[in-house]
Order: sequence, then C-alpha cells, then structure tokens
Amino acid sequence: MKSIAVLGSTGSIGTQTLEVVRGQRDLKVAALAAGSNVSLLEAQAREFRPALVAVWDEARARELQIALGDTQTRAVSGMGGLCEAAQLSGVETVVTAIVGMIGIRPTLSAIEAGKDIALANKETLVTAGHLVMGKAREKGVRILPVDSEHSAIFQCLQGQEYAGRGVAGGDGHSMQDGCGRDICSELAHAGSGCADAKAKQQGGSAPLTRIILTASGGPFRGRKREGLRDVTVADALKHPNWSMGRKITVDSATMVNKGLEVMEARWLFGVDFDRIQVVVHPQSVIHSMVEFADGAVLAQLGAPDMKLPIQYALTYPGRRPMAGERLDFAGIGSLTFEEPDMGTFGGLALAYEAGRMGGTMPTVYNAANEWAVAGFLRGELPFLGIEETIRAAMCAHRAAANPDLDAILNAERETYEFLVASHSPTGR
Amino acid sequence: MKSIAVLGSTGSIGTQTLEVVRGQRDLKVAALAAGSNVSLLEAQAREFRPALVAVWDEARARELQIALGDTQTRAVSGMGGLCEAAQLSGVETVVTAIVGMIGIRPTLSAIEAGKDIALANKETLVTAGHLVMGKAREKGVRILPVDSEHSAIFQCLQGQEYAGRGVAGGDGHSMQDGCGRDICSELAHAGSGCADAKAKQQGGSAPLTRIILTASGGPFRGRKREGLRDVTVADALKHPNWSMGRKITVDSATMVNKGLEVMEARWLFGVDFDRIQVVVHPQSVIHSMVEFADGAVLAQLGAPDMKLPIQYALTYPGRRPMAGERLDFAGIGSLTFEEPDMGTFGGLALAYEAGRMGGTMPTVYNAANEWAVAGFLRGELPFLGIEETIRAAMCAHRAAANPDLDAILNAERETYEFLVASHSPTGR
Repeated sequence: MKSIAVLGSTGSIGTQTLEVVRGQRDLKVAALAAGSNVSLLEAQAREFRPALVAVWDEARARELQIALGDTQTRAVSGMGGLCEAAQLSGVETVVTAIVGMIGIRPTLSAIEAGKDIALANKETLVTAGHLVMGKAREKGVRILPVDSEHSAIFQCLQGQEYAGRGVAGGDGHSMQDGCGRDICSELAHAGSGCADAKAKQQGGSAPLTRIILTASGGPFRGRKREGLRDVTVADALKHPNWSMGRKITVDSATMVNKGLEVMEARWLFGVDFDRIQVVVHPQSVIHSMVEFADGAVLAQLGAPDMKLPIQYALTYPGRRPMAGERLDFAGIGSLTFEEPDMGTFGGLALAYEAGRMGGTMPTVYNAANEWAVAGFLRGELPFLGIEETIRAAMCAHRAAANPDLDAILNAERETYEFLVASHSPTGR
Repeated sequence: MKSIAVLGSTGSIGTQTLEVVRGQRDLKVAALAAGSNVSLLEAQAREFRPALVAVWDEARARELQIALGDTQTRAVSGMGGLCEAAQLSGVETVVTAIVGMIGIRPTLSAIEAGKDIALANKETLVTAGHLVMGKAREKGVRILPVDSEHSAIFQCLQGQEYAGRGVAGGDGHSMQDGCGRDICSELAHAGSGCADAKAKQQGGSAPLTRIILTASGGPFRGRKREGLRDVTVADALKHPNWSMGRKITVDSATMVNKGLEVMEARWLFGVDFDRIQVVVHPQSVIHSMVEFADGAVLAQLGAPDMKLPIQYALTYPGRRPMAGERLDFAGIGSLTFEEPDMGTFGGLALAYEAGRMGGTMPTVYNAANEWAVAGFLRGELPFLGIEETIRAAMCAHRAAANPDLDAILNAERETYEFLVASHSPTGR
C-alpha cells in the first residue's frame, strides 16, 4: 500500500490522479489540498478519507472542518497547511498538481521530508530547477514527471545508461547558475548563453545525445504572424488533441507551453539546450523521444490520456493495467513531423533564450506569460501581445545568477510590477 | 576488455560485427568461423589475431593453417571446429551470424559453456526456440538479439517490468510443446493452435500486452496475387530500405522473413502469437514497438544500419557512441502504417500457423522456404511457388511435440526429401 498526497486535487491533473487511485487498490490518499473549490474537496475527502485536507483560505478551512466533523479528517489552511500536507508522515509520493509558483515551496518541503515527487507543477522546475534538483539529489528522492512529454522521455530512459541521469537515481548533473550579463543585448544572440556553454563542456561524451520534444503545434499551426493578429480567445482555446485548462491551452497556441517544457527537460534530464529539439507532430501520438550516442532513438507513444503518465509516476518502476484507448497504427495511417516555426511562434524562441540565460530569467519569462495570458483571456491584450509582453519583461530584467527562492519570488513580483506600470495609462 | 567469437565472420552480419569491433577499443576477437570464404577469413585473422579460426572444410582448414603459419592462430574445421570456436575459454559473447540450421548446434554449445549469445541466426529460435531458451535459462546466459526488429523490442523492454521476460535476466517463460494433431485440417482454423492456448492461460495479466513488429512490406507491397505471378528474381531482389543477402531479401519480398521474426519474437520475449502483431511501415524508421498493460507504447527508431543492433548486443547494457546517419524527423516528414495483406502474402499467415502448431512445424516451414527460395533464385520456381511449397510441406508433415535437436534435424531432412520427391518428374 503506497500512501500519497495530492496537492491541487480539484484541478484537471488532481481529479485524474484520484481516478487513477480509484483503479489501483494499493494506492491510498493520505492528504488532499485545493485552492478554493471546497465543495469538491469535501466530496473527495468523504470518498478517500485522508488524514489531512488543506485549503488556502483560513475561513473556508474552518467551514470545511465543521462539514467534515463526522470524519477523522483534519482541515488546515494557508501555505503552512499546504506544506503540512506535503510533509505528512507516512506519505511516500506527493503529487504536485498545483498551478503556478505557489507550488514551489510545498514541493521543496516535500523533498526536504524525503517524499518522492510526482511533478505536475511546471513552475517548479522552470523557475527553481537548480534548487529542486539539488535538493532532490541531496535527499535521494525521485522527481517523477507527470507531464506527458516528460513522462515519455522518462519512460524511454529506463534501463538505459546515460550521462547526467537526473531523475530516477537522483545522481546528478551540474548546476546551471545564470550569468547576470546584460540581457537585452543578449537577446540578439541566440545560443550565446553562459549556462549552456558550461553544460556543453561537461556533456561532450554523454550517451544521451538528444531529447526530441514533440509539439502538436496547437490550433494555429501553419499560420504566419499576419494570421495571428486577430485571433480570438475562442480560437486559441480550440486545442486539436488534448483537453486541458484554459491557461495551458493558450500556452499551447503560443507554443510557450513547449518552451516551458524545454526548460523543464533541461533540469529533469540534465541536458543542455542545444540537445533539446522541438519537433512539431500534429497527431500527438508520439509523446516525445530520446536519441543516444549510437544513433538509436526511443519513443513513447499513446492515446492522449493524462491518466497514463500519472499512473506511471505513482506505480513506478512497475506498470499496472489501465483501461482506455489503445493505439491502432493501421487506423492512424500516418504520423507527420515539421520544424517548429520559431519566427511565427516567437514565444518558443524566447524560452530557449530565457533558459540559456538562466538564473532568474526563466522566472521572468514565466511570470510575464502568466500575466499576459490572463490579459488575453480577459480580452485586454491581443494574441501576439503575449509574446511581446514576455520579450519586454525579459529585456527589462537583469538576471541574477543562482537565485534562492526569495530571489525567484522577488523576480516574479518585479515582473508583475513592471508589467502593471508599463501597461497603465501613466506607464511607459 | 570483452572477448568475443564471431561465427559466420565473412557474411553480411559477420563483417559488420568486425566493423563494430574496429570502432570499440575494449572489444577483442578471440575466434572467427566461416563457411568457405577462406581468403577473407585469412585477412580477418591477420587483422584481429584471434586464437582460433574455424572453417567448414578440413582441407581448407589445413591450407589456412599453413597460410597463417607466421601467426599464433590455430585453424580447425567441421562442426567440431565450429563448436570449439563457440566454447573457447575466455570468450564472453558469441555472435552467431551463421546462416541456416547449421548454426543451432554451435549456439547450444556456446550456451552450454556459459557464453552470452548475440543472436543473428534466425533458424536457432524458429526451429529450436524451446531448447535454446530453456538451456539459456538453465545456464543463466543472455540471448541478445541482433536482428533490427528484435533488438528494437529488446531496447524498448529495458528497465520495464513485464511478465515472462525471457531475455535479459534469463528468468523465464513457459515452454511451447507443440501438439502433434492433424495439421492439414488445422490449417483451415487460424488461431486454434494448442501451444498458443497454453501460453494464453499463463499470460493473462502480463504487463507486456503487445509486440508490434514493423515490416517494410518489401518491393511488392500493395500488389495483389495477380501482380505477383510473373515477378522475376531481379524484381524480388530490389528491397526498398535495407541492403541484405539474396535469401533474406527474397524472404522480405514474400514476407516469410517477417513470419520467421514473429516466431523468434515468441521465444525471445515469451509472448503468445495473439500478442504479436505485424504492421507494415514502409519507411522502416520505426524498427518495432511494444505495448504495455497501461496502454503505453515504446518504439525504437533509427537509420537502417545493422551495426547499431550489433553494437548494442556487444556493449549491452551500456551504449557507446557510433558514427552514422541520424534521424531528421522534419526531413522524414511522414511515417505511415498499414495492415499486412496476409491474403496476398500468404507466407506470413502460414508462419503464424506453423508457430501456433509448434513442435517440428516451424522447422518444416523454414526448411520448405529455404528449399523454395533456392529454387526461385535458380529460376526453377515462380515467386508464388515459394508460398505453395511451404503450404504443401506443412500439410504433408505431422508435427512432433517438444522435439529434441535430432528430431528437428530429421524434420528438416524429411522436408527436403518430400520436396525433392514431389517436384521430381516421377513425384506426385
């Protein structure tokens, strides 16, 4: 019996995690945490009978405690409650399905307490990859990716000897430490980042030579910039293959989502950015691939169902039967591939830049995107404004090398302040 | 430093094995064996300085010994010499690249002596899979597949927990034991074989749910039977993707080659025939795939270069850098898939039948094909005559269950005798 905590249990990944638990008799939920959907959280608590539930707002936590008065479940609140859920004694694996930078601290707490992490929170590695992977190595815990692309890569790497294996064994690759050089001038020079140069020196003979991240290309694949000027929120929310939340669906349309995944892959698998290639694969049947030094490529394929990577993270290193669609290759007929159009989807190119610059720059990239997507969804910013906003925020930021969590959270706050100021009537 | 023996060193796989050895400083050749190409064998002996060379003919072995008089290499002959090479002290891995049933006995000898096998001889598993896998388990040796498809499957299974793992660990799946029922009437009932039913009972909850063997479809893909009536030897030798020997290229055109691979996969990976699916994939980029009980599919992809699976078998479980073509997915553009047309390529359907019947039937399938392909290459038999010959030989044979090596070799001899008699002017 494996005991798990699910942080973000009422969201898309959280509810699918609980579906997986329903299908596996030897998984048990010991803690649940949610932001504001208290009614669903209460229903989940009644079904799974965890020892602890955490909700952000203190008043709501009190209401929830009263509602659950006939059960053994204790309700807690705030960041303290979230971290208590992350560190609960007896829990083996913490599923971090909280959206946003709020997920970083509980993830670090869980690692500190020696829990394996089933990682679904993108911001954790994008903004604090060096802290998280360093702590995971120190504590000997596993960072098990839940994202379909990273899970695919992780599955392909099982049983393969490769340099810099940062995941399963916790033995490690080097730290990226940013550089603090002038960033605006650097934006003109793709591939000149300092972190990258360092990784390259160390990774010369690595048997893992390439990570091939597949991308659906989103609803606007094939369009040029002119064709993106007037796209609406409804257009951007029509993802061709996956059913996901609104924020991530817009990120898919801008390809910023793929950019964030590139940065995550850099930390999860300990490879430099030159070795992470994005290939557009509209059918989304191949979830990602790896290439070794002998030229062999391994790929993981499957139906578009997040329950598969979630279950694999929870039952790793074993696999368990799971109902669902199976691939029928003759029925599929054809799998196609294209280069990503980084000229049109500049958000992806900027992700490589932010990643290569390192330090606090990925935090700025992520925060500016978050701010801009919210504006786009409210109808206040055009689609191409998302990319422009990210670029402007990156240009205005001087990256700090090797930031601690406070420096990362400061960079996020400063980015928001800069964007609010520059978009207000009296701003620049 | 790993010491290897190469049986069949002057053939296609043998020479490519030596190319791999040239690129790896920690591989050493201790024994070489060849059939009749003594001049090439002598050159190989001068380059690699093995302790032993084996050649089939005794007189040629004596000549070779004289020619190599200035070296430390000893020349031996016959089946005794072949088995001596297979059992040579200090050798860790024996590459069995001999073509034909003559490869079985030295393979069994090598296993008996505790050597790992890099298996390139198809007949070994097709005709004596139960003996070879049983002996390998008993002696705790690895059977490392060299064929690109089986190597692909083997690569995909690394680090994956699955039932019946017959390869890496040597821990095992059950014996197939044939059934000896009347075969001619059975040919009408696809899927009713006895060995299969038994495997099914045991494999119910196996996490490995499907092996997907890819097939190029050969030069005649898309044709119907009418379009195969008048094909010439030259037509059949035009393989679209791989450069191989004449026999195997014709086997590719009839899809008998894929049928033999299906039977090999059954033994290598311990799965029943219902779980081995052939999918036509004309680009030959995906070398094969496996599906697990959670629906995840892993695939191995690569350029069409046999040196990759050869090297992987020799450096397993590690991988080493290897020069060569790399896959460019955007350049490839599209990978396509079709159901195999078993009505037109009846040799593939017959392989499933022979495999399901088990016992000596796969030997008959293989021997009849060998005999018929030789006739086709001499211009004495039409292309469709190959399939007809296999069917006739299978119908005339009463399969013996669980045959020992003598029974297998007898079945081969009887098949030839039957075919000679039935094709002679006085035959039926």
